Amino acid sequence: MYDFTHAPKRQGTDSVKWHVEPGELPMWIADMDFATAPEIVAALQAKLELGAFGYEEPQASYFAAVASWYQQVHHAQADPSWMTFTTGVVPAISAIVRRVTDIGDNVLVQAPVYNIFYNSIENNGRHVLASDLQYAAGQYAVDWADLEAKLAAPLTTLMILCNPHNPIGKVWTKAELTQLAELCLKHHVILLADEIHGDLVLAGADYTPVFSLEAELRQNTITLVSPSKTFNVAALHAATAIVPDPALHARVDRGLNRDEVAEPNLLAIPGTIAAYTKGAAWLTALKQQLWANHQLAVEFIQQELPQVRVASGPATYLMWLDVHAYGHSATALTQQIRQRTGLIVSDGTVYRGNGAQFLRLNFACPEAMLQDGLARLKRGLAE
Amino acid sequence: MYDFTHAPKRQGTDSVKWHVEPGELPMWIADMDFATAPEIVAALQAKLELGAFGYEEPQASYFAAVASWYQQVHHAQADPSWMTFTTGVVPAISAIVRRVTDIGDNVLVQAPVYNIFYNSIENNGRHVLASDLQYAAGQYAVDWADLEAKLAAPLTTLMILCNPHNPIGKVWTKAELTQLAELCLKHHVILLADEIHGDLVLAGADYTPVFSLEAELRQNTITLVSPSKTFNVAALHAATAIVPDPALHARVDRGLNRDEVAEPNLLAIPGTIAAYTKGAAWLTALKQQLWANHQLAVEFIQQELPQVRVASGPATYLMWLDVHAYGHSATALTQQIRQRTGLIVSDGTVYRGNGAQFLRLNFACPEAMLQDGLARLKRGLAE
Repeated sequence: MYDFTHAPKRQGTDSVKWHVEPGELPMWIADMDFATAPEIVAALQAKLELGAFGYEEPQASYFAAVASWYQQVHHAQADPSWMTFTTGVVPAISAIVRRVTDIGDNVLVQAPVYNIFYNSIENNGRHVLASDLQYAAGQYAVDWADLEAKLAAPLTTLMILCNPHNPIGKVWTKAELTQLAELCLKHHVILLADEIHGDLVLAGADYTPVFSLEAELRQNTITLVSPSKTFNVAALHAATAIVPDPALHARVDRGLNRDEVAEPNLLAIPGTIAAYTKGAAWLTALKQQLWANHQLAVEFIQQELPQVRVASGPATYLMWLDVHAYGHSATALTQQIRQRTGLIVSDGTVYRGNGAQFLRLNFACPEAMLQDGLARLKRGLAE
Repeated sequence: MYDFTHAPKRQGTDSVKWHVEPGELPMWIADMDFATAPEIVAALQAKLELGAFGYEEPQASYFAAVASWYQQVHHAQADPSWMTFTTGVVPAISAIVRRVTDIGDNVLVQAPVYNIFYNSIENNGRHVLASDLQYAAGQYAVDWADLEAKLAAPLTTLMILCNPHNPIGKVWTKAELTQLAELCLKHHVILLADEIHGDLVLAGADYTPVFSLEAELRQNTITLVSPSKTFNVAALHAATAIVPDPALHARVDRGLNRDEVAEPNLLAIPGTIAAYTKGAAWLTALKQQLWANHQLAVEFIQQELPQVRVASGPATYLMWLDVHAYGHSATALTQQIRQRTGLIVSDGTVYRGNGAQFLRLNFACPEAMLQDGLARLKRGLAE
């Protein structure tokens, strides 16, 4: 019913991913080489027929679509009154850092984690305080004592959680999220959850939105969601901040408006409504394709690259590859792979923590492209 | 060749302008009731065919299109190396206020002026310092001594100029702009020009972009341009900061990036390129229609509303109406007009300065709608 065998041709366009030399194959940035759902494109085309594209503001239909998606897909209740439109998860994180923390404060993260969190914190004069995830036998876990000690530091005022966690693909359980939210509440730290990968749990139990934790806990949280990763529409510039507590909601809403990241462009509203009301069938098909790709990549690596260990969980379309057995830094290996084969993967160093021994591979592409990428990876890592 | 007789039907959409009660007629916010140029819509439709909408960054073709428009339409040279893409003029103003001034500084404006300038200044903890335009015999002029005294204040670090000036429709001459830029340079005040209405000089001599002033002066300036007003594409979310001095350019570029208002959505680049490379014929036709509307409105007011004085110049599609002869505040008159007739005009009070004796009327609509609006204005102002 949907085609996941052709990658749109983006060389020579304004695509960041495909701004590459001839013959190079980008498998780094989190942007899929699939066309988005045709149901979304149809809604965007319909909007263009209107012709006049002045100032817009989301109406009840937008917030109802967000609520219905989380109800139907994730069995989680979000009240429209908790929501504010924003132009993206990253713009919202930066604005929230500026609004709910002060210069010089600590913002807690769990490294290795999405590198742009560091920009949002450090560009605004706040300090990164990392409670590194503990890595053993190819698995990551929270060091709860370290986490609590760092949350308890008086200057720690915000924690940015990645739920599910990029780059390690881990789906936090409801029990873990509850424990985390309890510690944040106990130590007066606001919990900000980036849930941009929430729709992309490819196998096993679904993720738990932070706004769906019990009432006392969710009052201290801010959840950011978006169709961006799910539907390959990063440039739709549409996301939603979900903030159950009215006072905190007002602060966040004000911060997003002050920083001018709360107004929708002409496609943001119809694109999101189409995604959230008509996109479920496409997402089901996408996840089947992504899981097939995941299994293909895991099998290839197990058979052809025994020195590489797949250390990621079932969420996101990003594979976290432990390459410490090669005895070179991820930075050196990334450069070597690109120079030898044209394959571009992410250097795990940018995620900090123990990332310097990892590569991150984006496997969201047609199978033939993935096979090309895996073959290049093998050549790139050969002695 | 182009149709300016039909207004797109926007009631019940996400339009801010048309979020009105049945029977109301909005002639306030600066958004036209004309469809945009078909050349732009065609480019947007073509972009949708790509299907994959990941992260984007503007390439040389974008900056070349901006440069060619200013060269061909305004005979002004802008080097692409001076430019940074931004999501809008207002987001850029707010980010620049944060980046080039400090908390507690004065930002100079010339009241009455576009009200959102005040938000960008005050929301960020800076002070508005107004050098009010002097009003006499239906004309506004700069009080140069007052302006220089206020620029010379040590805490005045930025001036926001509106060129041409909204809401008074005045086209600043090159001599005036030069004098202004000289004073800013002399007193170490950065000159930030909002030129969003620059393409809409409906009669008389064209406007002068601030980046085209002589080299020594333009080094101290930041110019913001956009196809937003010109082509009725506010929700395209596309604008360009033009900063000739490399050091100041780097500061502005950094500020726009830090505040997450420097990444294009999926339509911003193709929409702007189409506007600036294929939009000239449509703009010529639009300006003819707007000037005909302007003349129609002036004649109606002179004949039917002798107590109202048209105080605006030939730029923008906004008419600045002096209603002091009614002996009521603009706030009271605006409410009275809306209650009696459903016509919504802007209350001049929000522009500060002497705005409390003015109404602002948006005349960018089909002629039949304008005639309806003028008839309502007459009924609304009757005894």
